[in-house]
Amino acid sequence: MKENMQKKAVKHKAVILFSGGLDSTTCLAIAKSQGFACYALSFDYGQKHHAELAGATKLAKLFDVTEHKIVKLALNDFGGSALTDQRISVPDYQGDGKIPSTYIPARNTIFLSIALGWAEVINAVDIFLGANHLDYSGYPDCRPEYLSAFETMANLATKAGVEGQHFKIHAPLLQLHKHQIIREGLRLGIDYSMTFSCYRLDTHGRACGRCDSCVHRKKGFAEAGVPDPTQYV
Amino acid sequence: MKENMQKKAVKHKAVILFSGGLDSTTCLAIAKSQGFACYALSFDYGQKHHAELAGATKLAKLFDVTEHKIVKLALNDFGGSALTDQRISVPDYQGDGKIPSTYIPARNTIFLSIALGWAEVINAVDIFLGANHLDYSGYPDCRPEYLSAFETMANLATKAGVEGQHFKIHAPLLQLHKHQIIREGLRLGIDYSMTFSCYRLDTHGRACGRCDSCVHRKKGFAEAGVPDPTQYV
Repeated sequence: MKENMQKKAVKHKAVILFSGGLDSTTCLAIAKSQGFACYALSFDYGQKHHAELAGATKLAKLFDVTEHKIVKLALNDFGGSALTDQRISVPDYQGDGKIPSTYIPARNTIFLSIALGWAEVINAVDIFLGANHLDYSGYPDCRPEYLSAFETMANLATKAGVEGQHFKIHAPLLQLHKHQIIREGLRLGIDYSMTFSCYRLDTHGRACGRCDSCVHRKKGFAEAGVPDPTQYV
Repeated sequence: MKENMQKKAVKHKAVILFSGGLDSTTCLAIAKSQGFACYALSFDYGQKHHAELAGATKLAKLFDVTEHKIVKLALNDFGGSALTDQRISVPDYQGDGKIPSTYIPARNTIFLSIALGWAEVINAVDIFLGANHLDYSGYPDCRPEYLSAFETMANLATKAGVEGQHFKIHAPLLQLHKHQIIREGLRLGIDYSMTFSCYRLDTHGRACGRCDSCVHRKKGFAEAGVPDPTQYV
């Protein structure tokens, strides 16, 4: 028992960006499997697909996170994205290599910055996010070079960084295909029927099946060779 | 008249981090004097010295900014700073070279990230902040190397950056002493009695005269050789 207590005492804390979607839930499961005490951070940022927050709350409990914070930040007040601006409708998947209108200006930077602030307050140096660079929508803030630049900046920005701590941005899904992410999540026991990915969920929590996020998700389950538990309209 | 209209049409937009304090008000005046259409961004982040927001609103009108946004973000929910956490009292000025407890973890990073998001939405690439590296409290996120790393990250983070735009972080006060900042502001017509700097303003808007921010401000007016219009308790 003494050994157990000692183990508990040295458990490192990590802040995890956690939307309750497929990627960030897998990311949370990975951080947990690596032995981190998990501090899950979600944002109520005026996203249209609000059902994901309710799902995130359930999942955070299921994963027994140390703390789950939902930060309110009205990015919809700025607009400029199909995900936050009521005047822009969410497009069907195009796959034309262009950055789609679902891109939210500086979203990951804003979320990571707030994660960095929380991490510094709780004396954590590890920050996880489910950014994915392969089966993704071409968002610039999911690229390895961006994440590396953020990490450099974070270590110059903070008291902890100046005092010799080193913040690390973990993106364990970065170089995985969607089907690999799903297989890893299943191995870690995730019930993906509880995760939401669709950009235009209906009021019953059913996915559209046609937006970028749905298309990547569907393809992932198909390629993983496992049943897709998603409820589509 | 035609020429005037053309001039108006090409006026560049800039987002200015604007608290209504001495530094950020001077920074706003400088951006305006450089011909930018100014988009002032303030934060209601649970700061104890809340009177500055009312002052910021008045000043933004006086400077005829194109838009003034006050974003709500409950950094006090994280705590960890004497400026946001009711359990930590604001210390008197120490001047011991250590980063004081008024440091807010990742504050400038969070504010600049949100400024970056707004800038991208309105097609601006210029972001101003009143960071000052000489007469300051040793905050890591006021250093030139930090600002430079943020700029690099910002250009990798954004659609506009990827598409060849270049975001620039302007910190025109960075290498100025407080008395130089004050002289520049007076030259630009600022009424500094309208600006607030104190970390523990009383309910009548009177400054304590003893916190870091008051001490730097007082010294600035003394060294500039001009009357200090601040109301002290």
